[in-house]
Amino acid sequence: MHTDFQSWVAARQSHFENVLRGLLPQADVAPQRLHEAMRYAVLDGGKRVRPLLAFAAGELAGAEQARLDVAAAAVELIHAYSLVHDDMPCMDDDVLRRGKPTCHVQYDEATALLVGDALQTLAFQLLAEHRLSGDAARQLEMVKLLAVASGSRGMAGGQAIDLASVGKPLTLPELEFMHIHKTGALIRAAILLGAHCGNISQPQLDKLDHFGKLIGLAFQVVDDVLDCEADTATLGKTAGKDADNDKPTYVSLLGIEGARDMAQRLHREALETLVEFGEAARRLRELADFIVLRKY
Amino acid sequence: MHTDFQSWVAARQSHFENVLRGLLPQADVAPQRLHEAMRYAVLDGGKRVRPLLAFAAGELAGAEQARLDVAAAAVELIHAYSLVHDDMPCMDDDVLRRGKPTCHVQYDEATALLVGDALQTLAFQLLAEHRLSGDAARQLEMVKLLAVASGSRGMAGGQAIDLASVGKPLTLPELEFMHIHKTGALIRAAILLGAHCGNISQPQLDKLDHFGKLIGLAFQVVDDVLDCEADTATLGKTAGKDADNDKPTYVSLLGIEGARDMAQRLHREALETLVEFGEAARRLRELADFIVLRKY
Repeated sequence: MHTDFQSWVAARQSHFENVLRGLLPQADVAPQRLHEAMRYAVLDGGKRVRPLLAFAAGELAGAEQARLDVAAAAVELIHAYSLVHDDMPCMDDDVLRRGKPTCHVQYDEATALLVGDALQTLAFQLLAEHRLSGDAARQLEMVKLLAVASGSRGMAGGQAIDLASVGKPLTLPELEFMHIHKTGALIRAAILLGAHCGNISQPQLDKLDHFGKLIGLAFQVVDDVLDCEADTATLGKTAGKDADNDKPTYVSLLGIEGARDMAQRLHREALETLVEFGEAARRLRELADFIVLRKY
Repeated sequence: MHTDFQSWVAARQSHFENVLRGLLPQADVAPQRLHEAMRYAVLDGGKRVRPLLAFAAGELAGAEQARLDVAAAAVELIHAYSLVHDDMPCMDDDVLRRGKPTCHVQYDEATALLVGDALQTLAFQLLAEHRLSGDAARQLEMVKLLAVASGSRGMAGGQAIDLASVGKPLTLPELEFMHIHKTGALIRAAILLGAHCGNISQPQLDKLDHFGKLIGLAFQVVDDVLDCEADTATLGKTAGKDADNDKPTYVSLLGIEGARDMAQRLHREALETLVEFGEAARRLRELADFIVLRKY
């Protein structure tokens, strides 16, 4: 990985933290406890993979940074809401997230429930209230795109399939179907929303969507490998949790070497979809490398 | 109440049930259990007060029925999601809703959590994917309006204040602040979204918003009176729950007669805001009567 890429990531992450701080309701505005908990759940944490993908796709499409900030924030708020709800006792019952107590541990379950609900609402509010495109009809398409990616036939649907799969042997196609929804849909949405903030043709959007599909899957395969290998301290969340819960993973289906091979194949295919973009897709290429080669 | 109004309500409720059946994901589409539970939580229940208000405001503004159907459905899905999450053990822990087992009792808590999440998403998807206005910029305003009414400074914020108030003595202004957010915001949004589907001036929208504020508050005061008087069978939900939970209500603050007087005053003021609309506001007037005079 280039030093140049690492400093781009660090600069973007730091910039984006400030964006989130500004877009989230302030903690001294009523209802204070809810707003404080929303900020707790979103700020100071995460690799911000989805926002970085949105920024990289937006750069490729020549988008203004201010528009990208809002689009990336909307996607990250959806991601953050899903983590808060996913960590709750009735779902994964996790106590640690990004090295900190999970939202329902730090506050309480009822607050965590409302935090997730209100973060989702805020995501759609942001997409509707800021100007993200000269064309309002296109901006409505962006709202729809995020909703479809997040809803019962996207991320939430993937979580429902995940729930139903605990303790059940899944086939590889079934596991793939689950992850394409659970994590893939939102990763694709991040890339497409970033691109929509700029100017891009439909065939190019289709290429980026395919890139997103491949890299979203690679992300999950690598997650399974890391979850199997890493220890809790490095990961910032409880390691080995999925195996403990008897959840099917790429490692349980393919073995650790098989899962590593699959991640490499997806990585290669993802890079191939970017060839026609040349130098403009540099950051997306680097992010693909980062997603597959990361150690945490 | 006129027979004519009763048949209008019955016809609209029946029509709207079909609208919802068509707009919700079908139960045979994957993930089936989630989709089945979403339908369970939304269909066959409720007075559909918010959709009826949207229809009445839309008629006043000359809106097309097909547009009103979508706007009313979006509001009702937000309402339904809030009930599903509100009934969960970590919130109100209710087992009965609209005469049926609540969603987490009929399914399970994790499914109920995802049902609420996905119903909220679907509400925003509907507002973005159907044509509700000839002007896409106005339609974005409608998305924003629903988001603001539902989020941390609207409905979800009201629920957070409600949570924080259990076992605490609230003053009348504090109780009013809570309800203006918890139920009032969405009732106002229903009326405004219905009106936005047609043609209406800003001063007229302001009048309707004020009507919505008064009638939303009246709705809550009447709810408290009914909760105190009625038995569980008539109400279709557990009666006397708020008093049991030591939650402040208009009845606990004003007494039953004081609460009835307040409802009547709000009713009168609400009707006054409609005077200038003449006959066009007939259904809104009748709905105001219905909300205040209902027995369940």
